[in-house]
Amino acid sequence: FFKLTGVIPLDDAVTYLKEGIDAAYGKKGQQILDMNYAAVNAGIENAVKVEVPESWRTATDDVTEKSAYPEFIEEVLVPMNRQEGDSIPVSKFVGREDGAFPSGTAAYEKRGVATSVPVWDKNNCIQCNQCSFVCPHAAIRPALVDAGEAAKAPESFETLPAAGKGFEGLGYRIQVSPLDCLGCGNCADICPAKEKALTMSSGGWDEVQEDNWRFFETVTIKDGIANKESVKGSQFALPYLEFSGACAGCGETPYIKVVTQLFGDRMMIANATGCSSIWGASAPSMPYTKNKEGRGPSWANSLFEDNAEYGFGMKVAVDHIRSKIDDCVDVLNDSAVSAELKDAAAEWTLLKDDKKETRRVSDAFVTALEKEQAGGEAAEAIAEILARRDFLVKKSVWALGGDGWAYDIGYGGLDHVLASGEDVNVLVFDTEVYSNTGGQSSKATPAAAIAKFAASGKRIKKKDLGMMAISYGYVYVAQVGMGADKNQFMKAIVEAEQFNGPSLVICYAPCINHGMRKGMGKSQENIKDAVASGYWHLYRFNPDLKKEGKNPFILDSKEPTESFRDYILDQVRYRSLQSEFPDIAEQLFEAAEGNARERYHTYKKLADG
Amino acid sequence: FFKLTGVIPLDDAVTYLKEGIDAAYGKKGQQILDMNYAAVNAGIENAVKVEVPESWRTATDDVTEKSAYPEFIEEVLVPMNRQEGDSIPVSKFVGREDGAFPSGTAAYEKRGVATSVPVWDKNNCIQCNQCSFVCPHAAIRPALVDAGEAAKAPESFETLPAAGKGFEGLGYRIQVSPLDCLGCGNCADICPAKEKALTMSSGGWDEVQEDNWRFFETVTIKDGIANKESVKGSQFALPYLEFSGACAGCGETPYIKVVTQLFGDRMMIANATGCSSIWGASAPSMPYTKNKEGRGPSWANSLFEDNAEYGFGMKVAVDHIRSKIDDCVDVLNDSAVSAELKDAAAEWTLLKDDKKETRRVSDAFVTALEKEQAGGEAAEAIAEILARRDFLVKKSVWALGGDGWAYDIGYGGLDHVLASGEDVNVLVFDTEVYSNTGGQSSKATPAAAIAKFAASGKRIKKKDLGMMAISYGYVYVAQVGMGADKNQFMKAIVEAEQFNGPSLVICYAPCINHGMRKGMGKSQENIKDAVASGYWHLYRFNPDLKKEGKNPFILDSKEPTESFRDYILDQVRYRSLQSEFPDIAEQLFEAAEGNARERYHTYKKLADG
Repeated sequence: FFKLTGVIPLDDAVTYLKEGIDAAYGKKGQQILDMNYAAVNAGIENAVKVEVPESWRTATDDVTEKSAYPEFIEEVLVPMNRQEGDSIPVSKFVGREDGAFPSGTAAYEKRGVATSVPVWDKNNCIQCNQCSFVCPHAAIRPALVDAGEAAKAPESFETLPAAGKGFEGLGYRIQVSPLDCLGCGNCADICPAKEKALTMSSGGWDEVQEDNWRFFETVTIKDGIANKESVKGSQFALPYLEFSGACAGCGETPYIKVVTQLFGDRMMIANATGCSSIWGASAPSMPYTKNKEGRGPSWANSLFEDNAEYGFGMKVAVDHIRSKIDDCVDVLNDSAVSAELKDAAAEWTLLKDDKKETRRVSDAFVTALEKEQAGGEAAEAIAEILARRDFLVKKSVWALGGDGWAYDIGYGGLDHVLASGEDVNVLVFDTEVYSNTGGQSSKATPAAAIAKFAASGKRIKKKDLGMMAISYGYVYVAQVGMGADKNQFMKAIVEAEQFNGPSLVICYAPCINHGMRKGMGKSQENIKDAVASGYWHLYRFNPDLKKEGKNPFILDSKEPTESFRDYILDQVRYRSLQSEFPDIAEQLFEAAEGNARERYHTYKKLADG
Repeated sequence: FFKLTGVIPLDDAVTYLKEGIDAAYGKKGQQILDMNYAAVNAGIENAVKVEVPESWRTATDDVTEKSAYPEFIEEVLVPMNRQEGDSIPVSKFVGREDGAFPSGTAAYEKRGVATSVPVWDKNNCIQCNQCSFVCPHAAIRPALVDAGEAAKAPESFETLPAAGKGFEGLGYRIQVSPLDCLGCGNCADICPAKEKALTMSSGGWDEVQEDNWRFFETVTIKDGIANKESVKGSQFALPYLEFSGACAGCGETPYIKVVTQLFGDRMMIANATGCSSIWGASAPSMPYTKNKEGRGPSWANSLFEDNAEYGFGMKVAVDHIRSKIDDCVDVLNDSAVSAELKDAAAEWTLLKDDKKETRRVSDAFVTALEKEQAGGEAAEAIAEILARRDFLVKKSVWALGGDGWAYDIGYGGLDHVLASGEDVNVLVFDTEVYSNTGGQSSKATPAAAIAKFAASGKRIKKKDLGMMAISYGYVYVAQVGMGADKNQFMKAIVEAEQFNGPSLVICYAPCINHGMRKGMGKSQENIKDAVASGYWHLYRFNPDLKKEGKNPFILDSKEPTESFRDYILDQVRYRSLQSEFPDIAEQLFEAAEGNARERYHTYKKLADG
């Protein structure tokens, strides 16, 4: 701009720009400064003239081509994303007066933004599904193709014979959606094959893979073969969260994506304000989605400060509705309805809360209810139950949010809900900072980390939210780190959901605010290092174990084997303390390490009984 | 009423009254019912005719006698208490536009309400001051009288030679204010003398003792002889809380009364809504008071939910004001002021935060500042300091409230303030129930206790607030019980205030809501039994001990020696579970005892390192 317009002498402009760079990035070290200086110089040196054809002056949009998008996308999402929401007529929202937006709309926006996407080499693939497990955007997924599907597949849709018991006759393939991938590279990074089966490439984004993805979307979900509660098995299930607007390499989304794969078709989510409410639902974009039967998580956000209570309210409402159904079942049992319906009702009553059977017995009950020809009170009871059919199945209620919510602003309510003893599941994305609002210190921020309101390094230590919940004795509590131990994470989620009481799962989530030197393509590796260096600890506290006479506290972390100091100094939030406040850095680094060690020892003592 | 008016047949009236009694007190057991029935019968049987003199028809108030009350009492308090507040002209509040009320006004209301008051037998007295220590209303106090004072005393103001080193030549006396005593009897109950030195008597309330009390108020405070931080020594100090409207035998007020005796002349109190804000300040009545120099606690109540933050704000404000004073001292040091002023400033800077010296060096500094003849910047700095003279002394900031505040509604903020690391002291009156609003269950309510919202006995266990605070590692935490261990309570309070960081002291406080069979005259004994039966536990967690290489957790409770079951069944809140829900009572009683035992074992493990 300054070179072309000459509004001020170019040398002056460059001087001012570099001063601006110093002011903005001075804290991040010389390397970042140099990169920014180089960008200014490159801009000046590489300016080329672009010729604009004269015909562009009178060009018009080609509006005759009919869009392939659904009506809501065409008439609401696209205009809103074009910043033309004010022009949408009110009539387009008829039927949505309550503010509810359709799910799955994130699939229609920010497409094709990655500079490189993973390319799959089937010859190296060991079919572990880890790439899919860790993908923050559900843009890489395993397909299981039967013979009939294989016959219809494009030629480029190559498969391997699916390995393992029960998979005989199926083809296996890892499929990338190049238009939805954000190019972070965690999939390729996590690939445990001797020779990587995935490599990031700018050539991976082509129309062949787009075709393959379109075909992939027609392939049926086959999640009944492998154990769905295992790392590998979970990935054959449909993720009910895809293509969110989270940062490339986000440490938060992979956790909840896996949770939706386990419970998505009967989940209710209360979401605290924060990153997870932004990538989770920024109207008109909704990454939570539904299956072919139209089932998926319901999702809502109330306030930053009341989210646990909001989820608690959902649980109380579900209980109330199901108690009304129970009353109606009592009426049916006392009526002259068919034995078939009574049997279906009895089976539903017996197994309605069994996670493996709840869907089957609920569907069978609905079928029997719809078939029944009854009059009088029985007819009324049937109508009442059918009006509540969505609540026949056991709901899985989750309150989600970040550390700003769970440790700080929403903690008073979270504590109250955990204390209540009610069956509400809480998942905390612990980025150790208010991520969404730009990096303010929270009570989850450890000593020595630089954050807003802790500009010279936080002086006090990280709050131990898990221990505070453990003090109740009847709350399931876990700390997890997906990249460090995927199986432990799976165990914790399954146990938490299974536990008939409050559950709290705290997930370590790397974030752009950490300034990881290796970048967000290594967020899973970063979690692994966090545990190996004793920075983060994995454990599960399961009150049910007490009934079995066992110690309820299981420490899943081993003694640290890697350097704590190396781990923290690989992140700008810690490293910049050295350059900016060298006189206190050493002392705070020691405090941070001491605090982490003290936590480990506390956990070890608990585990040893 | 029914007997005299005959509006309905007397027998019918009695039947309805007894039905009403059954409905209101049925849960409290047959004994309570019988006592109420007997009251009805006694009312009917003992009605006597009162003759009203004819002259009363035309009687008028004698308004010529000039009141001895201060102007505020006469013109605001008395009319307000007469429910005539609406008639007070606005002009009476000139100078109080900020809503502040004068302190010490509780001394002018609800006088002479006790049916019996303690009578002191000097021959039995061992001069331990325990009666004064536990008195909820500061209505019984030890006097130390020197020869000059003794000469002016009424004849009835008998004294003993004061015992102990340093007390030579002084007379000792226990003085009751019969008009301010509420007659609970805890003083007589706690008296450890072989033959009680105090007996409750309806004859104790006479004009001789009123005269003695008036003389007592002229006796100087002699709190410099004994160790003020001991049980006995603390009672020679002025209580800055007297004659509150708390229930007779209240378990809350004795705790904070002693705290004011230690720090009252430099205390700032943020009080949560609840009982303590009602007995602590129900306009126009204010039981917090001040000394002869006009110094005493400042007191304010913001909201139920923000009290810890409110206290934190006081602390931050004090720091800010004192930092401005520091800046002014820097100016003085760089100016040509007298060596005397510089010395006073230096001494103040050195000792301003030393609790034993802060008052002396602050007073000396003010004297030097006032004497100084300076111009220019120095004069400005002196003026700035003198404008802030109240903040030269180190303030002792306290946030007070009940369990409804600390465990529940204000807990989110309390946690935040404790986490902050700032030097705020928190005192929790744990009555295990929302006392002021009529007995709703709080997170401090233990399993099996009946409360509103837990009408069939609470199913889940009491929250361990102390352990949650201990998890920070840098918060001073104590559980105390005055009647169980007065010295441990004194230690905890002194350590908490001394600790340069957040402190949390949780005080077990018997309450009328507990329905203690022995009544509120035994509230101190009840605390003793709570600890002896393992219902309540005494401990101190002092982070400063870590620096000395010691275990910071000290368990002050011994293994329980008394029956837990007997203890709880002596209280209606537990006993009524037996009569109302006999099928679950046993199970919940066992759970309650198991929970208490588990807590003890957790503490024991901590104490054993």
